[in-house]
Amino acid sequence: MRRPGFSRRAFTGGAAAAAIAPAGLTAALRSTSEPAAAPRAEVRRITMYAENLPNGQLGYGLAPGEAQIPGPLLEMYEGDTLQIDLVNNADVAVSLHVHGVDYTIDSDGTRMTNSIVEPGESRLYTWNSHAPGTREDGTAIAGSAGYWNYHDHVVGTDHGTGGLQKGLYGPLVVRRQDDIVPDHQFTVVFNDMTTNNRTQAPNFTAKLGERCEFIVITHGELYHTFHVHGHRWADNRTGYLAGPDDTSQVIDNKICGPGDSFGFQVVAGENVGPGHWMYHCHVQSHSDMGMAGHFTVTRADGSVPGGDPGHGGHGADTAGAQRPADPAGSGHAHH
Amino acid sequence: MRRPGFSRRAFTGGAAAAAIAPAGLTAALRSTSEPAAAPRAEVRRITMYAENLPNGQLGYGLAPGEAQIPGPLLEMYEGDTLQIDLVNNADVAVSLHVHGVDYTIDSDGTRMTNSIVEPGESRLYTWNSHAPGTREDGTAIAGSAGYWNYHDHVVGTDHGTGGLQKGLYGPLVVRRQDDIVPDHQFTVVFNDMTTNNRTQAPNFTAKLGERCEFIVITHGELYHTFHVHGHRWADNRTGYLAGPDDTSQVIDNKICGPGDSFGFQVVAGENVGPGHWMYHCHVQSHSDMGMAGHFTVTRADGSVPGGDPGHGGHGADTAGAQRPADPAGSGHAHH
Amino acid sequence: MRRPGFSRRAFTGGAAAAAIAPAGLTAALRSTSEPAAAPRAEVRRITMYAENLPNGQLGYGLAPGEAQIPGPLLEMYEGDTLQIDLVNNADVAVSLHVHGVDYTIDSDGTRMTNSIVEPGESRLYTWNSHAPGTREDGTAIAGSAGYWNYHDHVVGTDHGTGGLQKGLYGPLVVRRQDDIVPDHQFTVVFNDMTTNNRTQAPNFTAKLGERCEFIVITHGELYHTFHVHGHRWADNRTGYLAGPDDTSQVIDNKICGPGDSFGFQVVAGENVGPGHWMYHCHVQSHSDMGMAGHFTVTRADGSVPGGDPGHGGHGADTAGAQRPADPAGSGHAHH
Repeated sequence: MRRPGFSRRAFTGGAAAAAIAPAGLTAALRSTSEPAAAPRAEVRRITMYAENLPNGQLGYGLAPGEAQIPGPLLEMYEGDTLQIDLVNNADVAVSLHVHGVDYTIDSDGTRMTNSIVEPGESRLYTWNSHAPGTREDGTAIAGSAGYWNYHDHVVGTDHGTGGLQKGLYGPLVVRRQDDIVPDHQFTVVFNDMTTNNRTQAPNFTAKLGERCEFIVITHGELYHTFHVHGHRWADNRTGYLAGPDDTSQVIDNKICGPGDSFGFQVVAGENVGPGHWMYHCHVQSHSDMGMAGHFTVTRADGSVPGGDPGHGGHGADTAGAQRPADPAGSGHAHH
Repeated sequence: MRRPGFSRRAFTGGAAAAAIAPAGLTAALRSTSEPAAAPRAEVRRITMYAENLPNGQLGYGLAPGEAQIPGPLLEMYEGDTLQIDLVNNADVAVSLHVHGVDYTIDSDGTRMTNSIVEPGESRLYTWNSHAPGTREDGTAIAGSAGYWNYHDHVVGTDHGTGGLQKGLYGPLVVRRQDDIVPDHQFTVVFNDMTTNNRTQAPNFTAKLGERCEFIVITHGELYHTFHVHGHRWADNRTGYLAGPDDTSQVIDNKICGPGDSFGFQVVAGENVGPGHWMYHCHVQSHSDMGMAGHFTVTRADGSVPGGDPGHGGHGADTAGAQRPADPAGSGHAHH
Repeated sequence: MRRPGFSRRAFTGGAAAAAIAPAGLTAALRSTSEPAAAPRAEVRRITMYAENLPNGQLGYGLAPGEAQIPGPLLEMYEGDTLQIDLVNNADVAVSLHVHGVDYTIDSDGTRMTNSIVEPGESRLYTWNSHAPGTREDGTAIAGSAGYWNYHDHVVGTDHGTGGLQKGLYGPLVVRRQDDIVPDHQFTVVFNDMTTNNRTQAPNFTAKLGERCEFIVITHGELYHTFHVHGHRWADNRTGYLAGPDDTSQVIDNKICGPGDSFGFQVVAGENVGPGHWMYHCHVQSHSDMGMAGHFTVTRADGSVPGGDPGHGGHGADTAGAQRPADPAGSGHAHH
């Protein structure tokens, strides 16, 4: 499985795709003194459904009956526009608030701006993105690329505290045109004392040498420290070094709090080989109480050396990567 | 209102200004192998007053009867020296401890170093700063530029816990010679469950396209995550990209803890347009309990599209930017 | 005392040192398109002892009866391999888990991987490291250099919560070949409400102008903010600027959580002179309750201006730097 999620290729041929630049982007590019090669800006339109889930939870999904926690992994390239029709099939008003990308105030997803969706209704949210550029005064405009997140901003309180508690959140990845596309993508949302709203963190699997992308999001009240055994990453936009001169700090443990999101790519087992490598929140009581899973790196034949991953209170759950954002997907299997 | 705070221009002509380099700075520059063009180092002398405020609070001000929370925004350029006569008109011993700049131990503001001020007395605190340079061994000396903060270090405990709780803190901005000067400056101090010692965070206003500087400081016991809707910043010294090759990470949410301070500049409404854009602590209970305000971006005619900022528990308070550090200022109106 | 800890020089002549490259490293270097000058990779073998300490604490040491909290400062250069025979003289099973460097799954130090040590037994843990390189696909491999930490991962819980509480942790510094070697090294471990498992933080001493390295590690449940008076550092891999073009942010206060480790170098008293400079956690109750010590910078003759360091609840404890990793060391005197 390569390139799960909304891939450029998957959407280019779709009826919703059109190689046109949104007006805002065009204007921004026009103002640059040294315009880069024009990116292929695409406008895509998708439908998201908010739904009630068992045990009082709520989720976003890409088809009726397919809501999941976290919500579907959405991806854009800088310059793309994503138009999302949010259909509210849940029994409370919900919304869609996003970090990192551009939107006008009517796509803010807040009650104050009346950009929420009552039960049984729908609303269009438009997310724009842009490549790096230069303002007329010569100062640099940062591009939209990054590991971002989207979430409800209205259930329970005006800040969506109830919606976040119940599962209305998901990852958004915006890439630069030449960013490296990973083989696997794993989403980890530390939501108070749960991971992806589960008391036991999911396990992930990859083969030795595969490039794996972790997307780490925090919500709720608590701070956490994300740690993975045997692998490190660069503490920058992409999570990997741009080249030999990139001086980004390399870490394997990072403090994060509600609303934060970051991501990184590792080559599975590089310099350390296969094994059941733990990843966990390093706040001791958090890992002790279930915020720990396995990043299992297998040999080419699928075997794994050393130990029993079911030992010591860690479930042998082999549930894996973020489910591809495929309308024909298999339901709630995602963790 | 452009360039609030202690502007270079405002002080250059003052009696207190003198284009002389402090001795320490001169020595530092002399040791550089490739000295930059000599900065215009200035020595300024001001008077600060510590005062009791209503409800048991304490504040710093630039004139008697004008104490405010946060204290006045102080600004320096690298190379400048700021001499502050702290007059203690409060009923407890207070002090002035600063982050980021240079001072000898008798300006440390700690009881241990006897650099505190008893009620009715005054004391001179001297803050030096320096431009980047090079040591005799060829290693680089970092310049003083940054978003820093000053605060009491003696009320209540030897770490000023009581002074910080009551409001004895303020922002200090040290700029490099060619840093961009903003149109507006907004100071946000997360002090436990308050913002600027208020249970309701202040609102800020700017016109579309104006360059706005946020200065974010944390004090007390709690960690926070600062978030602003529809705008992002670079996670570096200035909060904006130095140029197209600047690879600083771009974020819209940042974890911070007591003693931390950071700042950034955004172009109001860039790529997103006017609106009442929320800023808030993203720790859910914190925003729910009042650590949320509006960064209102108006059209040129002052109008704002979408929603009622008074809706949903957010006050329509239009209190604005950090009051200019003007001795003829209007009193306690600052938030 | 220069270069405490495991210095390259101290080990080069030892029986355990051999200028051979471990297999993994050789392969990694072979794949680079532009190999750097071959580093002098060394393989060293040492013995660590886990022991019970008074008051129910546990520690690691380099000789029987010499366990200390924090454990000994271990140092490597990128490319080095460190082989550690862990002898468990304590009354519970212990392990050795390390951050940042390379090891196969049988050196992970987790119960799940059966890489722990029962009382009375021993186990070999092998830590490899590597210089920056390039993969066959042209992407950059980050080197192992950094301020890391090692700790137990099995006492009390599967995440070593009990071992960390009792003192089974220590610092690991991995340097790049041309990194600057400091004159002094100070290790500060914020472990819940203790510093280095003591209720009163230790004091450190250096002479004006000496280059001092702080290694700051956090464990347990709580977040902290490390602050030092009168000195700043670069928030990057080395904690100092690589040169005049290094744009790393300069800070004097940093939030950190369990599992995090960072380090930096300062020139004692640079631009500020001698004095008893406080360092402390800036979370107010933490500093008030003892997480504050002195970084005392003396004149050449050992004298110090200003104030009484014993004033205000701060002990006059003059315990100093990390004890050199010297088998003939003086026992438990380290703080």
